[in-house]
Amino acid sequence: MRRIAVKLEYDGTNFCGWQLQADVRTVQGVLEEAARNATGVEERVLVEGAGRTDAGVHAAGQVAHFDTESDLDTAVMGRALDNWLPRDVGVLACAQTDKSFHARFSASGKHYCYRIIRSQRTRPLWERYYLRVWEKLKVEPMRECAGYVVGTHDFASFTSAGSEVENTVRTMHSCKWQKDGENLLFDIVGEGFTYNMVRALVGTMLEVGREKWTFEEFKEVLEAGDRRQAGPTAPSNGLILREVLYPEDVEPFTEHPS
Amino acid sequence: MRRIAVKLEYDGTNFCGWQLQADVRTVQGVLEEAARNATGVEERVLVEGAGRTDAGVHAAGQVAHFDTESDLDTAVMGRALDNWLPRDVGVLACAQTDKSFHARFSASGKHYCYRIIRSQRTRPLWERYYLRVWEKLKVEPMRECAGYVVGTHDFASFTSAGSEVENTVRTMHSCKWQKDGENLLFDIVGEGFTYNMVRALVGTMLEVGREKWTFEEFKEVLEAGDRRQAGPTAPSNGLILREVLYPEDVEPFTEHPS
Repeated sequence: MRRIAVKLEYDGTNFCGWQLQADVRTVQGVLEEAARNATGVEERVLVEGAGRTDAGVHAAGQVAHFDTESDLDTAVMGRALDNWLPRDVGVLACAQTDKSFHARFSASGKHYCYRIIRSQRTRPLWERYYLRVWEKLKVEPMRECAGYVVGTHDFASFTSAGSEVENTVRTMHSCKWQKDGENLLFDIVGEGFTYNMVRALVGTMLEVGREKWTFEEFKEVLEAGDRRQAGPTAPSNGLILREVLYPEDVEPFTEHPS
Repeated sequence: MRRIAVKLEYDGTNFCGWQLQADVRTVQGVLEEAARNATGVEERVLVEGAGRTDAGVHAAGQVAHFDTESDLDTAVMGRALDNWLPRDVGVLACAQTDKSFHARFSASGKHYCYRIIRSQRTRPLWERYYLRVWEKLKVEPMRECAGYVVGTHDFASFTSAGSEVENTVRTMHSCKWQKDGENLLFDIVGEGFTYNMVRALVGTMLEVGREKWTFEEFKEVLEAGDRRQAGPTAPSNGLILREVLYPEDVEPFTEHPS
């Protein structure tokens, strides 16, 4: 048995999220089916992803691993997987890893991006991948919030119910809002994220931008560490899992995909 | 009866093009239905578009007009239309015009954009709006071709069969390839375009970029004015009708949409 790691890009619109469920279309589901077809080996393929993205969330650098009896060259396997996958999932890279590598447990961090288009009108060419906000937004206090998030906090207030995880303390390495013309890009890199955390942070920071919340209120809620205080959760379509980070000695992908 | 002009953005992926046809989904079709609902007047609404975009072609600034008995304020009508339209068509602007205004015949020009992502891998987050090209492309000779296109030419060689138009002479005001990181953007502004002309130009220039055609061959084919010599036609998903141009005295939209 060999362990194979893949880097994936997907459009989450038509998936009920990452995790395998009966009777619905999930990224893990189509990937396990593609892997069975691509390897040509009679085996039950179990795919483990680094992050269990929710329904509608996109990925430009999700990482997953699986074990296989197949001895296909990894370049060939990457192409074969890509060919068997539906058009809304693509394989950016494919590599053999040590059996100790685990897509989720070996990860040292993740980079998420949330994109916003500001427009009073329906924008069909954008709304698949951007949240449209029609109200005026004050960006400065949103930036204050982002700056405050950096460091180690108990993110219980920004963790949706339904999470199995008890410990909601996480360390964020960077968190910022950038302007791209009229659009806004939110970038956050952290060692790990609790359930719905990025969308809850963005949803609450948008309330700050709309001047319904102040920076001080945002800060108090974060410090309260109380799930009942969670602000609104931003919709899934604006969120992209951009990259999964690994320590240099276990990083499975040496080449940058082109 | 008043004449109303609308500026539209649409995602062409799930449309069989602009023009009304029985039993298939077209932009004109959904627009005529939305207009009937939005005006609330019992009338047959006929919508005329500036450009009859093909199946799969997108628009960020298509213009159309229709006549109605409704006396709704144009701002309200714009919002009502937007609400009645499916999610893949949006109304960017709505204005009342003189009865002499005609979305197509009053236009003085059009601006199209064709977008290319260069990648050897399937790119699900891009391919809805970008053509993916995996081969290396030499951009310099493609730029030579674009430069040569500017001015007045008989574009018969770049006109697909099936066009009703006899005269294929058109004047191009600007035509260029720009790099956006690894991606390529083709911009062309002209007084008018023959059937499939932009996609045929792009398809042929891509052959020049792949070094299967030379700039000299491109030039000869353009000068030959012979439909049988038409090069390959680039796929529709990369093409966007960005803007329809009108002379200042008939331009229906004074405000820029936000």
